[in-house]
Amino acid sequence: MGTDPISLQLAVEHLHARYAHALDAGKLEEWPQFFTENARYRIATAENEERGLPLSVLYAEGKAMMRDRIQSLRHANIYEPQRYRHMISSVLVEPADAGVVRSTANFIVIRIMQDGETMIFASGRYVDRIATQEMLLEERVVICDSRRFDTLLAIPL
Amino acid sequence: MGTDPISLQLAVEHLHARYAHALDAGKLEEWPQFFTENARYRIATAENEERGLPLSVLYAEGKAMMRDRIQSLRHANIYEPQRYRHMISSVLVEPADAGVVRSTANFIVIRIMQDGETMIFASGRYVDRIATQEMLLEERVVICDSRRFDTLLAIPL
Amino acid sequence: MGTDPISLQLAVEHLHARYAHALDAGKLEEWPQFFTENARYRIATAENEERGLPLSVLYAEGKAMMRDRIQSLRHANIYEPQRYRHMISSVLVEPADAGVVRSTANFIVIRIMQDGETMIFASGRYVDRIATQEMLLEERVVICDSRRFDTLLAIPL
Repeated sequence: MGTDPISLQLAVEHLHARYAHALDAGKLEEWPQFFTENARYRIATAENEERGLPLSVLYAEGKAMMRDRIQSLRHANIYEPQRYRHMISSVLVEPADAGVVRSTANFIVIRIMQDGETMIFASGRYVDRIATQEMLLEERVVICDSRRFDTLLAIPL
Repeated sequence: MGTDPISLQLAVEHLHARYAHALDAGKLEEWPQFFTENARYRIATAENEERGLPLSVLYAEGKAMMRDRIQSLRHANIYEPQRYRHMISSVLVEPADAGVVRSTANFIVIRIMQDGETMIFASGRYVDRIATQEMLLEERVVICDSRRFDTLLAIPL
Repeated sequence: MGTDPISLQLAVEHLHARYAHALDAGKLEEWPQFFTENARYRIATAENEERGLPLSVLYAEGKAMMRDRIQSLRHANIYEPQRYRHMISSVLVEPADAGVVRSTANFIVIRIMQDGETMIFASGRYVDRIATQEMLLEERVVICDSRRFDTLLAIPL
């Protein structure tokens, strides 16, 4: 991959796309593979972020903790009849530190229940720091528009 | 068009975009033009695909059969007060055979009724084989997340 | 920025992305900055556009009028508890006059109320004329699928 702006833009979009397809296919065990070894992942609400409150709905630091999270989900949800579909758009890429870009993207996640009922499960933006050498997430903050949360979030967003 | 990865990625996204705009504009007669002469098109449910069941909600092989399908739709639906809006994202492109790429993309289709009621009509993923010389679909499998179907699907997805 | 098709495509998508993020972040005062000095902006319904009716739900010509519009919105809506999220896809770019491209893109705007209720607020397509030198909108026509309108449109689309 080149390091010119066009190659970087498409590489970041490619990372977003692979992430979305892995989750939508229910391959939760692949999820930690999108992160660097010590990456931080958290889900927060837009309201708390704007108020500067350091509250996270979910927090994981490092791939080991992410793997644990997935294992718990697998144990808790023996049956997973619902499906999810990620839509990601408006991907902005900006240079940050050496070897790192910052990316912001809009997302919505659709949930499809087994009876066919379809709803917007979550919406918001990803605010990412991406290590460009390996094209992996060094940090992903998922900032959700709604402050109402399914306390048993079935999948990572 | 070049055959480097960046040109290919953008050419596939361009094909997706033209397809979406043609359908959303109600230009159903243009729909077969996005396919090669003997292309296969089918709509399936994610559930059946995962179980390996060869059941399709809709199946067409070759442009002639696609044109027939559109003619039937036109005769059956003299009034078409509803509108549709395709959103497509997370387009992955991978080399397949010579002159062919495989592409997977997420989609949702919004339906807007004449009274303004707006709903998510369908969601899922396109799994395509694309002939890169002509940039036409050689095969499109539309895998829908929901197993509940409007038996009178008003438009191709 | 180069003027080859790939650079142009990505530059237009970048403009769309920055526009979406500015609005979704509630930075309404930045909205006029996406337009050329004498740009035209209007919101119309697909139904009226197809009938050739020159009715607009909203019309603004020139940045001064856009700034006025934002000021009125700010005065009218002291409290803005709802949030918006733009999803934009299927961006087509075609050459128009010298230094100008025409772009069509699909959009949906999600509205998230303070109690968490999430709905599709608007859907449709952007039909734009973009001055490529400055990468600014010379004209944006927002063609909405629904003819039912919130008369107090809280934000520009």
